Amino acid sequence: MTKSHIEEAFKKLQLEIIASLETADGTGKFQFDAWQREEGGGGLTSVLENGSVLEKGGVNFSAVSGLLNAQAAKSLGVEAGNFFATGVSIVLHPNNPMVPIIHMNIRYFEMDGGAYWFGGGIDLTPHYVKEDQARTFHQALKQTCDKHDPSYYAEFKVWADNYFFIKHREETRGIGGIFFDRMNEESRGKSKEQLFDFVLDVGKTFAPVYTKFMHDLQHVPFSDQHKKWQLLRRGRYVEFNLVYDRGTRFGLETGGRTESILMSLPAEANWKYDFKAEPGSEEEKTLSLLKKGLEWA
Amino acid sequence: MTKSHIEEAFKKLQLEIIASLETADGTGKFQFDAWQREEGGGGLTSVLENGSVLEKGGVNFSAVSGLLNAQAAKSLGVEAGNFFATGVSIVLHPNNPMVPIIHMNIRYFEMDGGAYWFGGGIDLTPHYVKEDQARTFHQALKQTCDKHDPSYYAEFKVWADNYFFIKHREETRGIGGIFFDRMNEESRGKSKEQLFDFVLDVGKTFAPVYTKFMHDLQHVPFSDQHKKWQLLRRGRYVEFNLVYDRGTRFGLETGGRTESILMSLPAEANWKYDFKAEPGSEEEKTLSLLKKGLEWA
Repeated sequence: MTKSHIEEAFKKLQLEIIASLETADGTGKFQFDAWQREEGGGGLTSVLENGSVLEKGGVNFSAVSGLLNAQAAKSLGVEAGNFFATGVSIVLHPNNPMVPIIHMNIRYFEMDGGAYWFGGGIDLTPHYVKEDQARTFHQALKQTCDKHDPSYYAEFKVWADNYFFIKHREETRGIGGIFFDRMNEESRGKSKEQLFDFVLDVGKTFAPVYTKFMHDLQHVPFSDQHKKWQLLRRGRYVEFNLVYDRGTRFGLETGGRTESILMSLPAEANWKYDFKAEPGSEEEKTLSLLKKGLEWA
Repeated sequence: MTKSHIEEAFKKLQLEIIASLETADGTGKFQFDAWQREEGGGGLTSVLENGSVLEKGGVNFSAVSGLLNAQAAKSLGVEAGNFFATGVSIVLHPNNPMVPIIHMNIRYFEMDGGAYWFGGGIDLTPHYVKEDQARTFHQALKQTCDKHDPSYYAEFKVWADNYFFIKHREETRGIGGIFFDRMNEESRGKSKEQLFDFVLDVGKTFAPVYTKFMHDLQHVPFSDQHKKWQLLRRGRYVEFNLVYDRGTRFGLETGGRTESILMSLPAEANWKYDFKAEPGSEEEKTLSLLKKGLEWA
C-alpha cells in the first residue's frame, strides 16, 4: 500500500465521479485546471458551472508534498519533516432548491518518518429537510460503514454532527452524514489496506447516492419562496466554510490554491437581517431538524 | 471622561448618522432592535434593507460589560477581570455598483483595573476604484487626522492597508482608509480627553463623506456587467469579514449577537470559479489598484 497506489486510486475515483455527474447532469461539463505546487506535487481541479441540474460544483484531486513547516506540524501534532498528502474533495450546489447540496472528501496524509492517517466524510445539506431522504442517505452511509466495521457508522455519524456545526447559529450545516480522521493501524487496529478499502468505499458511495437524488428531484416544482430560502441556506453554507471548516482555513492559511479551495462556495448566496421562518412553514420545519443527535439510519 | 460619557456620545452619534443616512437614501428606513446581554449591557442594532440607494446596511451601537474570561483576556493581553466595551459599527452595501461600500467603527474598551484604549477606523471599498474618489476620501480622513496629530494619518493609513487585506487573494479589500487600536495615554502621550475627541471626530467624518458619495453617484448609469462585478466584489467582502476580520471572529467566538455582527454581510454575493478580468477593462484596472502602499492623500 504505497502512497502512489493511493494517489492513483484517488485520481481514478475523481474521473469516475466526474463521468457520473456529467451523465446525471445531462448538459453541464466540468472544466479542468491542472496545477502544480512549487514545493512539490499539484492537483487537478475540475469545476462545473451552469449545468442543467448543478449550478456550481467542484470535484478536486490533489497530491502534494514538501517540507511541513513548524507551525503546520504543530497544528497537526507531528514532528516537522517531509509530508505527502492526497485527496478528493467535492462540493455541489444544485439549481433546484429541492435537490440537496452535498460534500464528500477522502484524504490520506503521511510523514517521511512513517506516521500516516486516512480521513474523510460525506454530508448532505438539503435546503428543505425531508425525513425519507435523510433516512435513505444515512442508510446508504451505514451500509458502507457496516461492511468494514459495525462500530464505524455510529461513531462517525456523531463526529459529523459535531464537525458540521455552525456554532454561532446553533444549527448543523445540514443533516450530517459521516466524518472521520486520523485513522491508522495504531488508532484502529486495522491494516493500512483495510483502512484504505474503507475510505475508497466511502468515495464510491458518493456518486450512486447523489446522482439518484439529482435524477429524482431535478424536476420537482419550486416557488420563488423556495428559491429565496435556498439562497439564505447557501449563506449559512458560506458561513460554515469560511468560519469553521478546518480544511478551508488550513488551506487558505498555508497558501493552498485559493480557487480550488473556494470552489465550495455557491454561485450566489444571500443574507437577510434576522430572518424568521413563518410558524408552521416548511422552512421552520427544516430549522427544527438542523440539530445534532437525530437518528436517521 | 467616564465610560458613561463615552457611551452616551457614541449612542448620540449612532442616531445622528442614522438620520443623515435616511435623509440621503430618501426612502429607506432603519429597523431598530434593542438587545440585552445576560452578562451585562446590550445594544441597539439598526439595519436598513431595500432602500433607494442602500440595499443593505447596519449602524450598530453596543455597550457591554461583564467578566472577561481567561481566553479572551489572554487574546487581548490583559489580566482577567471585569470589562466594559462600547462602540459604533457601520457597514453599508449600496444598490448601484458605482456607489462604494463603506465601513466605519469606533470603540472604547476598559478593564476595572484602569487599563483602557480606543480603536477604530474607516475604510472604503469601491466596486470600481476611481482615482478622484480615492483622493477625496483619503484627503477627508487626513484632514480629520491632522487636526489631532500630524503623524496620525500616515501611520493609520498603513495600518488600514495591512488590516483590510485579503491574504489568500493578495489584494486589499478596497482602497483602505485609516485603522487604529490600543490608543491610550501610555501609548500615545495624549490625555484620554484628547484621544476621545479624535475618535469621535473620526465618527463624525463618516456621514458627510459618505452621504456625498450617495448623493453624487446614486444615479450613475450601470450595465449588467457592472452589476455582476459588484456581486463578485461583495463575495470578496464576505471572504474578508468571515476569514480575517478580528472583530467579526472575536464576536462570533465569544457568543456575541450573531445577527448584529453579521449585518456586515451583503444581501447578495456571488462567486465564479477563477474569474479573470478582461485585459484593459475597468475591472482589471480596479484589481491593479487593490494594493497596499498607494498614496491617495
